[in-house]
Amino acid sequence: MFANSKHYRTIWVNENDKKIIQIIDQRKLPHKFEIENISTVEEMYVAIKQMHVRGAGLIGAAAGYGMYLATLEASKTSDFDNHLCNSAEKLKSSRPTAVNLFWAIDKQFRAINSRTSNDEKIQIAFDTANEIADDDALSCKRIGEHGAKIIEQISKKKNGDVVNILTHCNAGWLAFVDYGTALSPVYEAFEKGIKVHVWVDETRPRNQGARLTAWELEQQGIPYTVIPDNVGGHLMQHSLVDLVIVGSDRTTYTGDVANKIGTYLKALAAFDNNVPFYVALPSSSIDWEIEDGIKQIPIEQRGEEEVKYIQGLHRGEIKKVLLTPEKSPATNYAFDVTPARLITGLILERGICKPNKESIFELFPEKKK
Amino acid sequence: MFANSKHYRTIWVNENDKKIIQIIDQRKLPHKFEIENISTVEEMYVAIKQMHVRGAGLIGAAAGYGMYLATLEASKTSDFDNHLCNSAEKLKSSRPTAVNLFWAIDKQFRAINSRTSNDEKIQIAFDTANEIADDDALSCKRIGEHGAKIIEQISKKKNGDVVNILTHCNAGWLAFVDYGTALSPVYEAFEKGIKVHVWVDETRPRNQGARLTAWELEQQGIPYTVIPDNVGGHLMQHSLVDLVIVGSDRTTYTGDVANKIGTYLKALAAFDNNVPFYVALPSSSIDWEIEDGIKQIPIEQRGEEEVKYIQGLHRGEIKKVLLTPEKSPATNYAFDVTPARLITGLILERGICKPNKESIFELFPEKKK
Repeated sequence: MFANSKHYRTIWVNENDKKIIQIIDQRKLPHKFEIENISTVEEMYVAIKQMHVRGAGLIGAAAGYGMYLATLEASKTSDFDNHLCNSAEKLKSSRPTAVNLFWAIDKQFRAINSRTSNDEKIQIAFDTANEIADDDALSCKRIGEHGAKIIEQISKKKNGDVVNILTHCNAGWLAFVDYGTALSPVYEAFEKGIKVHVWVDETRPRNQGARLTAWELEQQGIPYTVIPDNVGGHLMQHSLVDLVIVGSDRTTYTGDVANKIGTYLKALAAFDNNVPFYVALPSSSIDWEIEDGIKQIPIEQRGEEEVKYIQGLHRGEIKKVLLTPEKSPATNYAFDVTPARLITGLILERGICKPNKESIFELFPEKKK
Repeated sequence: MFANSKHYRTIWVNENDKKIIQIIDQRKLPHKFEIENISTVEEMYVAIKQMHVRGAGLIGAAAGYGMYLATLEASKTSDFDNHLCNSAEKLKSSRPTAVNLFWAIDKQFRAINSRTSNDEKIQIAFDTANEIADDDALSCKRIGEHGAKIIEQISKKKNGDVVNILTHCNAGWLAFVDYGTALSPVYEAFEKGIKVHVWVDETRPRNQGARLTAWELEQQGIPYTVIPDNVGGHLMQHSLVDLVIVGSDRTTYTGDVANKIGTYLKALAAFDNNVPFYVALPSSSIDWEIEDGIKQIPIEQRGEEEVKYIQGLHRGEIKKVLLTPEKSPATNYAFDVTPARLITGLILERGICKPNKESIFELFPEKKK
């Protein structure tokens, strides 16, 4: 998608040196657009853990490239397999809720283990990382095409009036390799000339909405309004939201959705006001093992300083300010789980389905055990 | 209650000069504790509008003292009644949702109009303002006594284990003249030796929870944890909340509750997880005219800069930082309405009742038309 009128992906191989992976350092957006070079597993681990990159698909792609960097490092050690294994464990420990992380690392393991020489292992890891990235972008594009139909239908019902879409956190192109999930249908609809407006939940504590979604939409020229996370219920009570679309960090094959903390509250409000509530995700975010999302999905707890301090721009410089009394305890759950019963549908790369196992297996029959 | 180990109210008459009203400037809390002198209607208007003082009961008391200041000013003009009337209109325009504002001004009008000489008018306005403040404190104390019984019952059920109470915004003593509403039962229970812990919603965009409720609880020595507004649903799903108590800026006689934006989302989550959801309020916050809260209560919209910028402490100084892209549009609804069907009970100065007109009129039979 566009950043400063130029097309970018969120992660790519350096044109001149394919041992260097490049990312947009998302911590500094929207105030500064900076590209970071990543050339070691350690750097990739830090980039994922410290959220230079974040979002389901992008974490997967970053892990894919991380495993490629691991093969480069491993080839310089005496025990290739041991280094690869340690690197995988390290990368896996960076974000416990993101299923794409584990999925990408496992995919790389299978690919690398199918080769014998170090050079072949490096090559296949490179190809697989690129494939993960390309597949992610393609899945997101397809999600956009399917989801845009929902927006188009609402637009027709409203006789072409603006369709108001509420989203939580950032499930735009910045959360993936390109296009995004929750925002991809918006981009597609906008391209088709459908009038849209996005209510952007700021998404405390890290403000991915206010910082990233707002920036993305502005860069593509799509009308939007930033709102505090508290506002969505009021807007829905007053018919100011036609549709909610969010992303997902992990979805069970039974349709329970782990997504950024606060998603569950918006789903409750949508349900209470008969507003359609859709979750857009690539099938790589589906957990085919877990049945009960609320009981079984591990929820990452992050440091309390992310709640107590907030970062913003002050006279051209990025500064952190303290929001609470200095000694306040604070708690920072990163995700919550929205039960399937509150969800209207899932938008996947193969189409739209109900959030239940029958409907999900209908789209992905090969996953049926 | 206590601030820096000394007892304060939130508003009082200067000991040495009764033409000066003193308030705690709440905009600077928790970082700075500053007392402000108010000696004109204009200053009181600004203090209410710019939220140096805020909260249902305190706005009422401030308006009461504002009307007293208006009599002092009016006595120096050629047209007492005209100045008084203009002052009342000015004060009424400061915060459109707060019913206590209108209630206090009307009470003052009736009192002042019952006297003939200017000196008598000033004296009765002074007495009435003090009465409003004293009544507010007394009502809050009673609310605490009634509400503490609910906490005590839960504590017994849990065999004396910690009772986890979630609250939104600040309905503590800082929102009233003393004690508060939502927090008053907590203070009362804590005094009785019941183990309590408060989950403090930070309450964007103005962070009255993270700034004021956290500070209040810390000053009284009550255990608490600050959480982003997005977290409450997750906590309730995992049985980490025993009880929700919030305040109210206006409650219809049918039991619909206008309170800080985001309250409705917490009520939905409490309802979905069978967590008792109580609203604590003095009867001065009841609107005896309005039947449908969602359709009829006017919801104040404040400036977008309150969403886009946030204030905090940076190296000992209070600074504002920008959270969004510079040109982001933002919307700032200050309140929402929680329908009666989601509320377990109302805690009033005369006791606890169901959120419906039969039950409310049972406590306040004199209000029945």
